[in-house]
Amino acid sequence: MVESAEHLEPTLVGQVMRLIQTRIDRRQYTPGARIPSVRAMAESMGVSKSTVVEAYGRLAAEGIVQPRLGSGFYVAAPLAPLNLAELSADTDPTVDPLWVMRQSLRPGEDSLRPGCGWLPESWMPHEMMRKALRSAARDGSGPTLFEYGPAQGADTLRALITRRLLEQGVEAVPDQVMITDSCTQAIDLVCRFLLEPGDTVLVDDPCYFNFKALLRAHRAHVVGVPFTANGPDLSVFASLLEAHRPRIYLTNSGLQNPTGASLTAPVAHRLLKLSEPYGLVIVEDDIFGDFEEQPSPRLAAFDGLDRVVRVSSFSKTLSASMRCGYIACRPDWLRGLADLRMVTGMASSPLNAELVASMLMDGSYRRHVERIRTRLSQQRQIVKTKLARLGIVPFVEPAGGMFLWCQLPEGCDAAKVARLARAENVVLAPGNAFSVSGAATRFVRFNVTQMEGDKVYAALRRAIG
Amino acid sequence: MVESAEHLEPTLVGQVMRLIQTRIDRRQYTPGARIPSVRAMAESMGVSKSTVVEAYGRLAAEGIVQPRLGSGFYVAAPLAPLNLAELSADTDPTVDPLWVMRQSLRPGEDSLRPGCGWLPESWMPHEMMRKALRSAARDGSGPTLFEYGPAQGADTLRALITRRLLEQGVEAVPDQVMITDSCTQAIDLVCRFLLEPGDTVLVDDPCYFNFKALLRAHRAHVVGVPFTANGPDLSVFASLLEAHRPRIYLTNSGLQNPTGASLTAPVAHRLLKLSEPYGLVIVEDDIFGDFEEQPSPRLAAFDGLDRVVRVSSFSKTLSASMRCGYIACRPDWLRGLADLRMVTGMASSPLNAELVASMLMDGSYRRHVERIRTRLSQQRQIVKTKLARLGIVPFVEPAGGMFLWCQLPEGCDAAKVARLARAENVVLAPGNAFSVSGAATRFVRFNVTQMEGDKVYAALRRAIG
Repeated sequence: MVESAEHLEPTLVGQVMRLIQTRIDRRQYTPGARIPSVRAMAESMGVSKSTVVEAYGRLAAEGIVQPRLGSGFYVAAPLAPLNLAELSADTDPTVDPLWVMRQSLRPGEDSLRPGCGWLPESWMPHEMMRKALRSAARDGSGPTLFEYGPAQGADTLRALITRRLLEQGVEAVPDQVMITDSCTQAIDLVCRFLLEPGDTVLVDDPCYFNFKALLRAHRAHVVGVPFTANGPDLSVFASLLEAHRPRIYLTNSGLQNPTGASLTAPVAHRLLKLSEPYGLVIVEDDIFGDFEEQPSPRLAAFDGLDRVVRVSSFSKTLSASMRCGYIACRPDWLRGLADLRMVTGMASSPLNAELVASMLMDGSYRRHVERIRTRLSQQRQIVKTKLARLGIVPFVEPAGGMFLWCQLPEGCDAAKVARLARAENVVLAPGNAFSVSGAATRFVRFNVTQMEGDKVYAALRRAIG
Repeated sequence: MVESAEHLEPTLVGQVMRLIQTRIDRRQYTPGARIPSVRAMAESMGVSKSTVVEAYGRLAAEGIVQPRLGSGFYVAAPLAPLNLAELSADTDPTVDPLWVMRQSLRPGEDSLRPGCGWLPESWMPHEMMRKALRSAARDGSGPTLFEYGPAQGADTLRALITRRLLEQGVEAVPDQVMITDSCTQAIDLVCRFLLEPGDTVLVDDPCYFNFKALLRAHRAHVVGVPFTANGPDLSVFASLLEAHRPRIYLTNSGLQNPTGASLTAPVAHRLLKLSEPYGLVIVEDDIFGDFEEQPSPRLAAFDGLDRVVRVSSFSKTLSASMRCGYIACRPDWLRGLADLRMVTGMASSPLNAELVASMLMDGSYRRHVERIRTRLSQQRQIVKTKLARLGIVPFVEPAGGMFLWCQLPEGCDAAKVARLARAENVVLAPGNAFSVSGAATRFVRFNVTQMEGDKVYAALRRAIG
């Protein structure tokens, strides 16, 4: 995965060939692009020019590059398919976001998944869901069951979401809300709408690991801002704004993933003020917001959905299988996003929107979420106590949610611990899967709802030695 | 929408300013890019250099561009959001794909939609769907109702799709199949996987209008190959391969949209042979395939899913609300596509996959589709006869499906007819919405299932005068 001297091809000529091929595979060299001159390549690789001449000659014989008289060598191979794994900077699969995601989503195996980001299905609202399905079977209209809906999504659900936003202090009208299939899809659409390859995006360090992987697919330049117990470190934030002129800051305000920390009001105010002269767009992912016991400040509420784009979903509270999230933002941007949604995937499911709406409408959602909050709070205490016995301590005491972001005992390497645990069928999420800078070597994110029984702790005890 | 001399700003200076701003809005000039020199701009616009100097000076005063001593002017404005409407080359909204799609998807209005691309909900399998929902309510497992599924989609449905592919002569194993939310999303993922902005994509002329809009979102260079009654015009196809070295050819083999024509076996064979030396990838969209009375040749079957990527969905036959389609392709590409799917939207809905699988499994799907085929055949005859009375005649006699691609009487302009019909609440799909070259001025695509009663014909009679 890295351009290193360690590979199967032993010769210098082979090394040069391999380097060019890797860069073509990663789309760093696209068809028709000029590759470095013989002299430049020889200097940068520390090899002789004749070595490079031979390597380029062989690549030309294979049809991978093409010489043009007097002007060097050009890429002749067709464009390589987008290879997200190749684009990874992470050489250890345990901290590679793609690997962690694939492991978490893989079903059926007998593995424990304290590294995953959701509640066990036994916590989910079975009776509400079955009732919603029965009601759709009985009363669902023809259009709801069979037709494409409008690109913005079903009106009823958009109105319900608007009302919920107002309760959270976010002033919005339904024309500022679009239904998506997920929070991830919402972020992806916003990135397609606002980013060009090479644009800088600020993320929290640490942040949800899929932010790293998703931004890689957009070929964004990702820069991390250290996340403290109160929100991002503002002095670093200010200097990164000036140094990188980022286009987007992608963050969670309440119950930040993975730290569980929440933004304070002064930090929210100063962050918005600092970033205003730069025209920074803030994408606020509020997917865990409903798990907060006391709502913390929301950038979307402070800003009034001007530069802030709010995204969320019902995957964590109602059902990840229903694929239902949303975007709330400026109405002119929403129109552009709806066009983009339409041409790239038509619209979200009216049936799924109806199922979600029927669960939101009758007050049982509120009771369900309250029950979960209480249960989460108990579970966090239990897990915290058990981890403490292993010398594993949380970074902050989260005000809600399912995560504990914890430091392992001195001398432990989380990636190594994750590898050892994996061998015992325990899938962990080690710190550097979340860190842009690779500074979270000793951290692990634990999902307190996926740690029933003693098996996880026993595996941890063995792994940390 | 076009860079014309006709706008509100009357002065030459204003014209220059407007041109630069438009190109920034369209992302032709991105932040940091150098705009044309004063001399080049003066020459290309046919104005004096002092006019350009004043225009650039005013743009600099507004912070839109920035002068750099001795090297010209550079874009200082932030990147404009992606504006698909601005990227349109179509100045008449009636033939703009985005407009036609928005009109078709807009629900509830009392308009007739012979321009839309789906069956009325009254044709859809109500009892099958309600039964599937009841069964999910009763027997749906916890994981199916609440969890994320694997990125490739639910195993049961992938196995069923693989079996259906085999019946159609397409050799595939489940590891070559991924569930998507729609055929459109399938195409979008393949484009993200294989295309760079500026790459050439071949489409049929005419083709489904959203191909044009979707490829615009990828900033592809779209080139049309004339579609004949037997498939694409192969001599043009050959010369376009040589001239443009396209990366992808996006087509429908059976019941091509909009013409209703189907590929013949010799054309399929020659097309694959011609394109092989160019490494052309063929994306075969088979969304209307199940409406064919006799299956026509499929490129995916001839090629064995090597260079051909097959995409389809159940939106036309079962329900567009369920959002369920698929991709079948080479296993190595499928792994890359699954990663891309995962990081940009996690996975498709296990619940919706279960609903589709339960409808496919018990044999009622086959009977449902057979009933629809018979009804479509009758309806095509009825509509053909009624249109003939207005002097409107089909391009070919389709071997199935819901579309008649028809030529209006001499002297008629389909865009004008569509505008007049729209005023009577009849949404038509005029030819140039489908044509890349704009050569389908006299054509209209009629959906024979959306033309009950006399209202559409009466409106047509008045519109064609």
